[in-house]
Amino acid sequence: MKITSLSNGKIKRWAKLKEKKYRDQEGQFLVEGEHLIEEAYAAGCLCALIVLHKVAYPRELAVDVYEVSEEIMRKLTTLTSMEPWIGVCNMPVCDDRSATRFIVLDGVQDPGNLGTIIRTAIAFGYHAMVLSQDCVDVYNEKVVRSTQGAVFHIPVLRKDLQEYLPALRKRGVVIYATDLHHAMPLQEAPTASDFAIVFGNEGSGVRASTLALCEYRIKIEMEAFESLNVAVAAGICMYYFYHKESF
Amino acid sequence: MKITSLSNGKIKRWAKLKEKKYRDQEGQFLVEGEHLIEEAYAAGCLCALIVLHKVAYPRELAVDVYEVSEEIMRKLTTLTSMEPWIGVCNMPVCDDRSATRFIVLDGVQDPGNLGTIIRTAIAFGYHAMVLSQDCVDVYNEKVVRSTQGAVFHIPVLRKDLQEYLPALRKRGVVIYATDLHHAMPLQEAPTASDFAIVFGNEGSGVRASTLALCEYRIKIEMEAFESLNVAVAAGICMYYFYHKESF
Repeated sequence: MKITSLSNGKIKRWAKLKEKKYRDQEGQFLVEGEHLIEEAYAAGCLCALIVLHKVAYPRELAVDVYEVSEEIMRKLTTLTSMEPWIGVCNMPVCDDRSATRFIVLDGVQDPGNLGTIIRTAIAFGYHAMVLSQDCVDVYNEKVVRSTQGAVFHIPVLRKDLQEYLPALRKRGVVIYATDLHHAMPLQEAPTASDFAIVFGNEGSGVRASTLALCEYRIKIEMEAFESLNVAVAAGICMYYFYHKESF
Repeated sequence: MKITSLSNGKIKRWAKLKEKKYRDQEGQFLVEGEHLIEEAYAAGCLCALIVLHKVAYPRELAVDVYEVSEEIMRKLTTLTSMEPWIGVCNMPVCDDRSATRFIVLDGVQDPGNLGTIIRTAIAFGYHAMVLSQDCVDVYNEKVVRSTQGAVFHIPVLRKDLQEYLPALRKRGVVIYATDLHHAMPLQEAPTASDFAIVFGNEGSGVRASTLALCEYRIKIEMEAFESLNVAVAAGICMYYFYHKESF
């Protein structure tokens, strides 16, 4: 199909997907470029493909294809150097029923940090990511891009932690929170087979109301006090707990 | 002193410090905001303070102070929401003579990654950072900002790694390089009291000519293959080697 008008209903709806409010309302989001489109397709999330006029997509995909003008592509893209292909995706259905190892984020704001943490969680075999309501949106275009498609490989849930964490503990999951005060060194934390690690906001860390719901407060041992970037701290803890038996 | 003209010689010279070429030529760079100015001052690197007309700096510093118009401040700043104070700094004198634990970066391009790695290196007690000639400049304003002043707390040297690494080995320093191929698991790497760890470019890793100069190739053990962000990988390795004796 060809779409030539900026005021076409589909174009207007897709352009709105740049905002979280409309993504949540429609249950859809956009991805740009071949790699992310292929990841979305493989995950069964791709529902339409938008291609720039005269720039055919490298292969045939079993979804509706819309050919659009450069002007329309400019309206849909969030990149300065535009890609010729944009995918419209349905948000994956995410559940945590079979998960036993969780990463919980309490107010993480930076899209790059969230993307990096998601990739690290997959690398070390964690099963689910749980985000507080005020975390940056996982379907934000910068997050999706920085995950390089990893967002399709792990369930990401958005929850009210005040309700979620107590429910998790009832399931027998031990919850560790990273904190700088009243915390035990990482290497002294007792192990557990089912566990969750909570990381906090870039500036203020895990909030007190969340800390109150966690069993153990842990801190990374350091030589000199420096506040570590949250993605680095998360990487260290995830690696440590993943390898704990061999340490 | 008051400076009111955009074409004043000092203003022109300071404005050029946004470019690496001129920073290298003058041996100077700019920092913006009170926190970084204080860090530069404490490190003995601050040589002049530029203040926005009528916005006095909170305290007296023993350096020349220049009061400038908003127009001039806009010319000097790299921020969209401008700070009222800019510091002109001399590059710190850096040497590695007493260092025994090194972090070496081969072609790291992203300012945020470099800043994060510098902070992590300080946290885990490394003594010197060595950057290949094609790494992003450590005095780039984004790097300085993301280090939050840590750049004043560790020597950062720029070297030709082809000459530097062999010299380091002659000093008895064991060199580990992170690599995905033909590498041993991190936890199997033999220990050493004097060592350097080499991390590579975001896309292509440590280049082959650098790998050839390293004693051991190491890789972080993972559950599922994902390429880790270089700052995360560096954080895990730095923590691991720092704590190795206790593992």
